Amino acid sequence: MKILGLDPGTATTGYGLIETDGVNSKILCCGVIKTIPSKKHSQRLLEIHNDVSELIKKHKPDACAVEQLFFANNQKTAFSVGQARGILLLAIEKAGLPLHEFTPLQVKQALVGYGKADKKQVQKMVQVVLGLNAIPKPDDAADALAIALTCAGTKRWGESVKFKKQNAKLQCKIKK
Amino acid sequence: MKILGLDPGTATTGYGLIETDGVNSKILCCGVIKTIPSKKHSQRLLEIHNDVSELIKKHKPDACAVEQLFFANNQKTAFSVGQARGILLLAIEKAGLPLHEFTPLQVKQALVGYGKADKKQVQKMVQVVLGLNAIPKPDDAADALAIALTCAGTKRWGESVKFKKQNAKLQCKIKK
Repeated sequence: MKILGLDPGTATTGYGLIETDGVNSKILCCGVIKTIPSKKHSQRLLEIHNDVSELIKKHKPDACAVEQLFFANNQKTAFSVGQARGILLLAIEKAGLPLHEFTPLQVKQALVGYGKADKKQVQKMVQVVLGLNAIPKPDDAADALAIALTCAGTKRWGESVKFKKQNAKLQCKIKK
Repeated sequence: MKILGLDPGTATTGYGLIETDGVNSKILCCGVIKTIPSKKHSQRLLEIHNDVSELIKKHKPDACAVEQLFFANNQKTAFSVGQARGILLLAIEKAGLPLHEFTPLQVKQALVGYGKADKKQVQKMVQVVLGLNAIPKPDDAADALAIALTCAGTKRWGESVKFKKQNAKLQCKIKK
């Protein structure tokens, strides 16, 4: 079972693809989709939509996991993240993939076992669970992997495939 | 010059199409796209996207105008409206149409000439400017027409076509 985790944002959308049997997971790839601030707002959204659709087409995940947000630093940020989130949900729905949503609290509880864990602790757990040599970079890619892992741990897939824990090579594709 | 005004929302997205020369405007059609709350969030966004894309394809507007929001009743609403707005901007960008954004303050100033005008005053001006017998219904359709009229009045198109003021027949297409 392949799960694509997505961390929405207009400037930077993180993504992380894992393969999991519900118990053990390995990383397949991760990275970020960056858009240029000087471009038109709607152009940036189209770029995100096209890039995510391309990712789905290329890697054929079985499910997608996206962070569900209720709070932002301010309402302007909430509108902006909401827009990017809408674009991602549309790409997922168009591809006919199951969508799973998790709040930051659920991600923290699933990975660290503590709802008030900080970002660094969550990222460290991503490294440990995926058996990586270092915390995946950039931050948004690590956050996307955390969401994918939350989905892997929370949902029971009932699959028998097992994966060996291994130091998977970290493939970070960074678009500028 | 045809302008399509859009008032984003996950439950109800209003639309209003006008034809204008920058001075006189007439209504072509207006209505709302409604989605069913019991449906999956991503399904509802896909429905809005498809319906708006269909509207653009059918009526071939020359430009689109969408409300730009910075404040909502709460952050949850901001995320939700942001998502619907992202979907609309994507449909507009995909169609290669010019996008114009206006804040509620700009809409009020353009139509009523007073930034603190209430919703009803704006809707009354929509009726007067378009020479209609009544305020267009439902509210979201009237709001979408207000945004289209703001765009018509604010942007100078430099076109020579003139339209007579007339009691255009109000075509309200309401989807349930």
